[in-house]
Amino acid sequence: MSEPAKGFVSFVSSGPGDPDLLTLRAARRLAEADAILFDDLSAGPILEHARPGADLVGVGKRAGRASPRQDHVSRLLVDYAATGARVVRLKSGDAGIFGRLEEEITALRAAGIGYEIVPGVTAASAAAAAAEIPLTRRLTARRLQFVTGHDVTGALPEELNLAALADPQATTVVYMARRTFAELAARVIAAGLPPDTPALMAEGVSTPEQRLTRAPLADLAAQLRDTPAGPAAPAIVLYGALADGPATEGET
Amino acid sequence: MSEPAKGFVSFVSSGPGDPDLLTLRAARRLAEADAILFDDLSAGPILEHARPGADLVGVGKRAGRASPRQDHVSRLLVDYAATGARVVRLKSGDAGIFGRLEEEITALRAAGIGYEIVPGVTAASAAAAAAEIPLTRRLTARRLQFVTGHDVTGALPEELNLAALADPQATTVVYMARRTFAELAARVIAAGLPPDTPALMAEGVSTPEQRLTRAPLADLAAQLRDTPAGPAAPAIVLYGALADGPATEGET
Repeated sequence: MSEPAKGFVSFVSSGPGDPDLLTLRAARRLAEADAILFDDLSAGPILEHARPGADLVGVGKRAGRASPRQDHVSRLLVDYAATGARVVRLKSGDAGIFGRLEEEITALRAAGIGYEIVPGVTAASAAAAAAEIPLTRRLTARRLQFVTGHDVTGALPEELNLAALADPQATTVVYMARRTFAELAARVIAAGLPPDTPALMAEGVSTPEQRLTRAPLADLAAQLRDTPAGPAAPAIVLYGALADGPATEGET
Repeated sequence: MSEPAKGFVSFVSSGPGDPDLLTLRAARRLAEADAILFDDLSAGPILEHARPGADLVGVGKRAGRASPRQDHVSRLLVDYAATGARVVRLKSGDAGIFGRLEEEITALRAAGIGYEIVPGVTAASAAAAAAEIPLTRRLTARRLQFVTGHDVTGALPEELNLAALADPQATTVVYMARRTFAELAARVIAAGLPPDTPALMAEGVSTPEQRLTRAPLADLAAQLRDTPAGPAAPAIVLYGALADGPATEGET
């Protein structure tokens, strides 16, 4: 965690969106940064922690679109750090969970630039908290697993570990679930998971747009299948041995 | 999130141990609390965020011991809240992940006392950040799963989903791994996971006692099997398609 003269990059986890869910360390890194490179999802009120005069650089990618720009982001990171700047690379949720850090870390190492990762609150934790339920339960939900709704091509991955994903004794969280959840649900139901398995969708979790929907797995899948595509808040879906919670639908 | 006259309980995630990894909301809840009920793991410097005069009540349980005291903790929570106090129930890591909230939530609901869950940084995120690696990788580690090393009896659960746990395409994180990891490793290796699968043990993550050990799965298991039991910092183990990282052994 030494800071070489040639600059330093902090991969800072922004948490799910509410600036109140930044860690103390993340808030301090933002306040001290000379430059902040941020994705679409992590922008907004979180950037109010930046000091006046810091460079704020949007480098957002859209889910499912091929990203010729990844090279560009890595180069930008290296270029900023090479000026001796304190650079924050802001990532939504926990940077280490589906944050796609590999390419950027590889580029920094190749350039001999030091970095750190500041861990944060992942969307699954925030979604369960918003629904006032735990993610695990001692007797019925002892395994917790996170997957994404699409691979690099933007589609649901062909190869799924259905023995893992159709396990009624686990809580499964699907990140970036909106476009492919109906297909995923059909496959886990075909693999034996009951269609009435409890499920919860959290859209825009911890933001003013937050919306929680509780429904049986098959119903939630049908609802997502019938919703026209379009711009919408990011959605994650939890299913499995979910605890009952007071939240059934609505906003907080 | 309305606060009824009869008091209110915030389940506050303390993060892995370093007070710097509290969220802004968690720090504020601690500073405003009339009473804080904490476990062993989450004590220490984090409690310095409490206001002078707040009741600090240790209700720690030891891993693996049957807990006749759970009823006691639930009653204490209800009793404190019933006085109209703002009560914080501090939980290490993310409260919703292996935080055993069910009994306490059930007791609060039965007593008609409101509560909220403040999400936080789970140990897995902090361990990967300390090792300077992401928990997931786009092509090789697309599923991330968390399990505990023991069930309510303190032993490794009899029924394990080995198709899930021996999957080389996942990153698996075993919480409370110290006593039973050797047995778990033997079972996943018998189920087909290569013995040289990369693994990382993180002890006392984010605390001054932090120690990271990187070794092939079978070697790490042997090392844990040969270590005499005794008081020691909590240990979590990550294995699977782990990224290479600069951290091989030592302290930060």
